[in-house]
Amino acid sequence: MTRPAVDATHDPSVTSWVESANQPGADFPVQNLPLGIFTPAGSTSPRVGCAIGDQVLDLAALAGAGLLPEILVEAASAPTLNAYMALRAVHRRSLRSRLFELLRADAPSEVQEQVAPFLSSRSDVEPQLPATVGDYTDFYASVYHATNVGSMFRPNNPLLPNYKHIPIGYHGRASSVRVSGTKVRRPSGQTKADSDEAPSFGPSRLLDYELEVGFWLGPGNSLGSNIAIDEAEEHLVGLCLVNDWSARDLQKWEYQPLGPFLAKSFLTSVSPWVVTNEALAPFRVAAFERDAGDPQPLPYLSSKDNHQHGGIDLTVEAYLSTAAMRQQGIEPVRLSRGSLRYLYWTPAQMITHHSSNGCNLQAGDLLASGTVSGPEKDSRGCLLELTWRGAEPIELPSGESRKFLQSGDEVIFKGYCESSGRVRIGFGECRGLVV
Amino acid sequence: MTRPAVDATHDPSVTSWVESANQPGADFPVQNLPLGIFTPAGSTSPRVGCAIGDQVLDLAALAGAGLLPEILVEAASAPTLNAYMALRAVHRRSLRSRLFELLRADAPSEVQEQVAPFLSSRSDVEPQLPATVGDYTDFYASVYHATNVGSMFRPNNPLLPNYKHIPIGYHGRASSVRVSGTKVRRPSGQTKADSDEAPSFGPSRLLDYELEVGFWLGPGNSLGSNIAIDEAEEHLVGLCLVNDWSARDLQKWEYQPLGPFLAKSFLTSVSPWVVTNEALAPFRVAAFERDAGDPQPLPYLSSKDNHQHGGIDLTVEAYLSTAAMRQQGIEPVRLSRGSLRYLYWTPAQMITHHSSNGCNLQAGDLLASGTVSGPEKDSRGCLLELTWRGAEPIELPSGESRKFLQSGDEVIFKGYCESSGRVRIGFGECRGLVV
Repeated sequence: MTRPAVDATHDPSVTSWVESANQPGADFPVQNLPLGIFTPAGSTSPRVGCAIGDQVLDLAALAGAGLLPEILVEAASAPTLNAYMALRAVHRRSLRSRLFELLRADAPSEVQEQVAPFLSSRSDVEPQLPATVGDYTDFYASVYHATNVGSMFRPNNPLLPNYKHIPIGYHGRASSVRVSGTKVRRPSGQTKADSDEAPSFGPSRLLDYELEVGFWLGPGNSLGSNIAIDEAEEHLVGLCLVNDWSARDLQKWEYQPLGPFLAKSFLTSVSPWVVTNEALAPFRVAAFERDAGDPQPLPYLSSKDNHQHGGIDLTVEAYLSTAAMRQQGIEPVRLSRGSLRYLYWTPAQMITHHSSNGCNLQAGDLLASGTVSGPEKDSRGCLLELTWRGAEPIELPSGESRKFLQSGDEVIFKGYCESSGRVRIGFGECRGLVV
Repeated sequence: MTRPAVDATHDPSVTSWVESANQPGADFPVQNLPLGIFTPAGSTSPRVGCAIGDQVLDLAALAGAGLLPEILVEAASAPTLNAYMALRAVHRRSLRSRLFELLRADAPSEVQEQVAPFLSSRSDVEPQLPATVGDYTDFYASVYHATNVGSMFRPNNPLLPNYKHIPIGYHGRASSVRVSGTKVRRPSGQTKADSDEAPSFGPSRLLDYELEVGFWLGPGNSLGSNIAIDEAEEHLVGLCLVNDWSARDLQKWEYQPLGPFLAKSFLTSVSPWVVTNEALAPFRVAAFERDAGDPQPLPYLSSKDNHQHGGIDLTVEAYLSTAAMRQQGIEPVRLSRGSLRYLYWTPAQMITHHSSNGCNLQAGDLLASGTVSGPEKDSRGCLLELTWRGAEPIELPSGESRKFLQSGDEVIFKGYCESSGRVRIGFGECRGLVV
């Protein structure tokens, strides 16, 4: 069993000498310690950082000052997190423990004096894509999303016969994965309305977001080998928020018979901070509870530990802000709130299934959950579902309504784990403005 | 128009001072000059090479000796072809011209003496994957293949309504692209026969090859921009043979609704030598001739030059050798022979379509044609089609028969361009032994 355990780094009584990390509702307390890549103000050299409160700690500087164990120096000094992701989990955990010791409020004052110069305000730095994405795979793990979408396109047959047996996924485009804040250019492509005789080429009119959770992988397996279910979390480095922007009109015309292609590959946005699997240890929950008539997972996707603790109780939210709302001083409005626990398949099951044919997973690969939708209407994770294909437009406080995204709309995702007796772990934001 | 022109480097009267390049039927005459990556005997350092006859020329050594223009030195000295692929076409062409001048039979004897030490026998070196594959995209460009496969799975509706309007493709797995000669491990996965109640997990029983042609790309476009049809060939660096190994039983169960996934991602094999787009200039042909009732390509996929010269008359062949055949001294038997000219879409149309939504293509991306099947039975490019899903087994000279691949089977692809008055351009081989 390689799932991280709750240990001293989750102790809710510990605070940080970085005061902003101790504010109620802070995304990045000392129990979180997410990693990312940033460029300092006025620099173009990317560096590994750890978010703490409203600050970022420069890990390359920390390594340069001899404050990290030797085994971590190379990974901490690299321009991407790929080297960190390639480390064995035991070494990734040693980095977390070290950062926790350096940043806790009762760290010796000489330690605080040594570390403090390596902090910068996060508002002064530029977040970058955390890793060079080798391959990007998008799953379809929410049974609510699959059922909703299926019932629009195949009313008599919403959920296909394979869905409850096999984690459905497809290869996505790695080159167009970008960090939060990247502007969303409306893609052009072929579309054909049912009433049209022939398709035409032009800008998408049905631009949508998809609220997803990403899984950064490492160290991975070699070609021809596979990852057993109880070994899978050795390879789950951390999580992020993912917006898998989608052009529904392109998708409808192109996706038969080989799946989505250009409807998705124009942009995929990820939040900049990799919340480590270790940080989420206190928020593990049982795998999705299947209905009485549902099949049990096949043995290669099944273990007692996965069944009891394979889920993660991560809440994700989607917000919308239109140009008119910003002009009128109206705050972004929440469109949906869902949870990763609604996923029919656990992250470990997705990793194990992906490698089960001998496919090699690599450090820096990104898996995504597919749209996170839950059973209620306000937990539907995309406009296609929320507006039921445009039939039920969303009314906004600015007096506008939306079926799909308009230019000037900004979509903002947030994510967090909360449970009583535990310090809240936040994911920051994943943003994108449609231009 | 960025399509390479026929020039002095295609002069059929020129021979090479490397005698083996002048043999009739040689794959690599001085008019070819394909590039690849190799490791010399006893070394693990990959180097850029050019195949000439039965030799390989070490381009890093050539650069080190000052025999290449300055602009090419970095690309020639790199451990992959990515830097070469990132060069503008004009510089890629200057490398071809330079190699042609150095290797032609009437090169000054002092040039020959300078260059000769940088040649090694190809049988002494180890070919490597030509480039780090950023993204791998597989198209479905043979209308014969699409019709054959469609008529097996959807007898009433073999060719979907979008096929003749839009180049169908999907994202493949980049991490499992390997060089020719990599052994093929039979993948395991979920399968479900029509007669089974539930799926089971185990080794694929319907292992197949797919005879495809690959397109190595560079320099590519930035995210949000696109590549116009008459600019597309600036980004077509060269071609190779591709075997998109497929597990048909996994594919059947998993592919709805998001397309092929683990049925393909266990291995994709490519031939080691990148035959440049320049080398193929004499073999350009008109784009596929559409039937009278077929739609014209939409304007973004259409140009006079593409219509008249967008096709490439590249013949591809698949051979099979079983363990018993090798034991009995029987030569590999040819299973099919097809041509890239049977593709419904040209390489330029695939490149332009792929970037039409703003998706960024990058140096080192690999596109593949999809299975190259033609109108005749002996031009069907995979066993699924050749044996009509196993209903018509292939009889082999060893007394065996095959519906799908067995352990010990070796699949060998060959490719070449031939036309009267032109020197034959060969692609070498793409091999894989099933273990």
